[in-house]
Amino acid sequence: MQGLMQGWPLTVDRILDHAKTWHGGREVVSRSVEGPIVRTTYAEIHGRAKKLSNALLGLGVKPGDRVATLAWNTARHIEAWYGVMGIGAVCHTLNPRLFADQLCYIINHAEDQIIFTDLTFLPFLLEHRDKLPTVKHFIVMTDEAGMQGANLPGALCFETLVDQNCADCAWGGFDENTAAGLCYTSGTTGNPKGVLYSHRSNFLHTLVTMGKDVMGLSATDTVLPVVPMFHANAWGLAFSCPATGAKLVMPGQKLDGASVHELLETEGVTFSAAVPTVWQMLLTHLRETKGQLTTLKRVVIGGSAVPEAIVRGFRDDFGVSVTHAWGMTETSPLGTLATPTGDIARMDSEEQLRFTLKQGRPPVGIDLKLENDAGERLPHDGATFGKLLVKGPFVVGEYFKSEGGDILDAEGFFDTGDVATIDAHGYMQITDRAKDVIKSGGEWISTIEIENIAMGHPKAALAAVIGAAHPKWDERPLLLVKLQPDQTGTKEEFLAFLEGKIAKWWMPDDVVFVDDIPLGATGKIDKKLIRQRMEGYVLPTAKTPVSA
Amino acid sequence: MQGLMQGWPLTVDRILDHAKTWHGGREVVSRSVEGPIVRTTYAEIHGRAKKLSNALLGLGVKPGDRVATLAWNTARHIEAWYGVMGIGAVCHTLNPRLFADQLCYIINHAEDQIIFTDLTFLPFLLEHRDKLPTVKHFIVMTDEAGMQGANLPGALCFETLVDQNCADCAWGGFDENTAAGLCYTSGTTGNPKGVLYSHRSNFLHTLVTMGKDVMGLSATDTVLPVVPMFHANAWGLAFSCPATGAKLVMPGQKLDGASVHELLETEGVTFSAAVPTVWQMLLTHLRETKGQLTTLKRVVIGGSAVPEAIVRGFRDDFGVSVTHAWGMTETSPLGTLATPTGDIARMDSEEQLRFTLKQGRPPVGIDLKLENDAGERLPHDGATFGKLLVKGPFVVGEYFKSEGGDILDAEGFFDTGDVATIDAHGYMQITDRAKDVIKSGGEWISTIEIENIAMGHPKAALAAVIGAAHPKWDERPLLLVKLQPDQTGTKEEFLAFLEGKIAKWWMPDDVVFVDDIPLGATGKIDKKLIRQRMEGYVLPTAKTPVSA
Repeated sequence: MQGLMQGWPLTVDRILDHAKTWHGGREVVSRSVEGPIVRTTYAEIHGRAKKLSNALLGLGVKPGDRVATLAWNTARHIEAWYGVMGIGAVCHTLNPRLFADQLCYIINHAEDQIIFTDLTFLPFLLEHRDKLPTVKHFIVMTDEAGMQGANLPGALCFETLVDQNCADCAWGGFDENTAAGLCYTSGTTGNPKGVLYSHRSNFLHTLVTMGKDVMGLSATDTVLPVVPMFHANAWGLAFSCPATGAKLVMPGQKLDGASVHELLETEGVTFSAAVPTVWQMLLTHLRETKGQLTTLKRVVIGGSAVPEAIVRGFRDDFGVSVTHAWGMTETSPLGTLATPTGDIARMDSEEQLRFTLKQGRPPVGIDLKLENDAGERLPHDGATFGKLLVKGPFVVGEYFKSEGGDILDAEGFFDTGDVATIDAHGYMQITDRAKDVIKSGGEWISTIEIENIAMGHPKAALAAVIGAAHPKWDERPLLLVKLQPDQTGTKEEFLAFLEGKIAKWWMPDDVVFVDDIPLGATGKIDKKLIRQRMEGYVLPTAKTPVSA
Repeated sequence: MQGLMQGWPLTVDRILDHAKTWHGGREVVSRSVEGPIVRTTYAEIHGRAKKLSNALLGLGVKPGDRVATLAWNTARHIEAWYGVMGIGAVCHTLNPRLFADQLCYIINHAEDQIIFTDLTFLPFLLEHRDKLPTVKHFIVMTDEAGMQGANLPGALCFETLVDQNCADCAWGGFDENTAAGLCYTSGTTGNPKGVLYSHRSNFLHTLVTMGKDVMGLSATDTVLPVVPMFHANAWGLAFSCPATGAKLVMPGQKLDGASVHELLETEGVTFSAAVPTVWQMLLTHLRETKGQLTTLKRVVIGGSAVPEAIVRGFRDDFGVSVTHAWGMTETSPLGTLATPTGDIARMDSEEQLRFTLKQGRPPVGIDLKLENDAGERLPHDGATFGKLLVKGPFVVGEYFKSEGGDILDAEGFFDTGDVATIDAHGYMQITDRAKDVIKSGGEWISTIEIENIAMGHPKAALAAVIGAAHPKWDERPLLLVKLQPDQTGTKEEFLAFLEGKIAKWWMPDDVVFVDDIPLGATGKIDKKLIRQRMEGYVLPTAKTPVSA
């Protein structure tokens, strides 16, 4: 027997319709790519997005066509987004921080027909347009004045298209499973793979993240999404802010401490979201300038693990609450958030901090599974670590064009590639990437945990741990240390420093001092490169017969 | 092109699965019908609900079968709910406050196969069971001890069924549009009509209400749903509390001020929801006993308009925030809530109060339409009032068994039967029921607004306004006043009291003093009965030729 409630497909155009009707006058403030601060409202964005839809239809865009954006966070980017999605085309957000080859690969793989671009990226597009045969039009997100200096022959002007089209355009009306967005994973191994979001998945992600214990946005909030729209949908904020009626402050291209601080203060921002690096830059700027945060109440931090110093800095020096979050492009992206449960809320602030530093717990709509290599479920005891798998209505089912083949297990879970623990409060903590974890005698050793402790040695500038081959244990930990300038160190003193802080069988078999520990594009230690560099290295314990 | 995210049907069994895994130890406390306070957890409720599912399967319940509950708010009621819905049967919540004839009609119309009942209702069932031919089994929500005094031959014992069945039962796995719940409207005209909720509509209502600006529940909350589960799903709390991990406190049968106050204090309740009458009883009790509210932070009030005195009482005397809400069985039920927008949050508390007393604004997922008799949309100016229509994924599409026929307009909106205004902030205010509004010369006059003002006259005990026939204007307002004991009054002094407080053309054409103003079952003025009693009455202005 079927229920008898209304059909009402969950399509994202309804989100901007809602904002227009119920929060039409709410401001959206952007630091434009041209420079000045620009003010608009949800009602204006709605009308302009509809005009863009008509412009796209006029350019021959059909449902399912991919229309890309290569753009910073601005109101125009939001207009392009909804303009594309509203007519059933697919908004493909391109990450300008990728290497040119990767970007070209992604544009070609997606078969993008149109690219909306900020002025910033014209040199790249001019140089590479010949390698992008599917792209029929470039739309430069500026006005006619901005087009004067734009060197991309044949490119269209965003504002001219808006001016030339009417706002009367029907949105939606298609199945809620229709594709809405496309975002490629950065792909540390192999080519980037595309995650094809549906209207339904985006809408459900929006509803879930609006929950008080998730992003918890309110119409009274002023939100600064520092996290880019090309970075997994700005963690959903380009949907959840209009859905809530929160004021939006879009930072454009300038994410340095001074620029972010200026917007936070002048616009009265109460809520922001970004990766740790951004917050580190802000805190450094505040300390150098004796700056204050007079309106900011809460920041959500994800993308990589939050250092304790950032949480303490925000909490103790500025009275700002930090929510640690975890997710991936494949999870739309929010998977877990470290918002307190009743038990944790009753703890004192130092005890609570232990949980803030974990990646947190899943909202309803996200199922997590922790399992070992044999596919057995592991206990939620906060100590046992295993592969983290995830399932839910806004989790990837398969990659675009079936890249990577079947990516779900028999129970329908997607393997995150992370290794984690889950504690009795339901808090998940990432302990390693699966490809980095050391498998020693059938047991797993977390490289990140050892690194974090070794990094605390006063002589260490950077530390990395990798698994090195071992005839008896398969792999054993090898610690690499880059010393502070003008320091010398010994293997013995670093081992002594670790002693008692980690399990005995986790103790590295060797310590090697190196001049350089390479970091990848996202600032994380590039272990793939380290493993390449250490090829040929043999552990001392592997050279002679082992007695123990 | 379809998105490539996971299939994950929105079925409500996943909500209790989530609570079990991530908030398994969170308490659910009930004032049992037998008397004592009973404590359990979401994990236990989950296991027991699965056992009940097996019991129901054993009794022959098939997908789509209606299984009714005639029960107060207790943990057992939640177990029955999820036990029924998890296997694709339909949980039909019966309202014990209805007259026996209506209850029998509803049970027969729904063709309920099984009725879960509290001990309270055995006398009713014993007396009427012969009139309920579809009901094969009665399950009494008690243990074997409780069954001793139970006089309902053949009835089954809830706890015995739990004991006799195993907890291994597959839930869900069906289409998310499968019917999950059935609730009949109280139906002031005609027979009650059934609203058949789907898993999808319940799940989406849950996600929407978890939003910070809606019910805004947190895992740190302790929630007392005074509003019954048979009253439009306890405003969704039986879903949203386990979905959030909030502690639940179920009040059972005792909703008087002293009983509610005791639970609020002993269990540390932070959030509660009920109709105004309940809160009036609580405030009266607190004043009589000089009681305090030491943990309560927020109450949501709906079901009928919130009197200003209740908002002020909570706010000024107890530091509790009131959120006014509007909804109906047909909207699952939450339609609007008066949570502040950015503009309203900046007002002083007296100015904010003007908005708290309105029914509020819709969350994303609820579309509202205000229109006149000609079907034209009316402005959101806070003054123009018209018919209120509603649309959304948890709004009724048609009634059970197509009672009432096609109930949606051409745009897919459902007519609420309410007359309302919507202001520039998006706040909706109910001004009348459509059947009570006075249509004078093509313009509408709100009876409620005149009544509320007239009720403020010191000599008035009660006031009611109805439309009386008029040869020129079709209808003109007639004010009926029941005076305070031992008072006398004149038409002139009541008209003088109204003068300047309402538009001139709203002024009643006559004032009639009556001994009694009848109230209906829900405490609202029974205008249908008043109109019957006033049959034959002729307005003085209708008797003579009218010059103006």
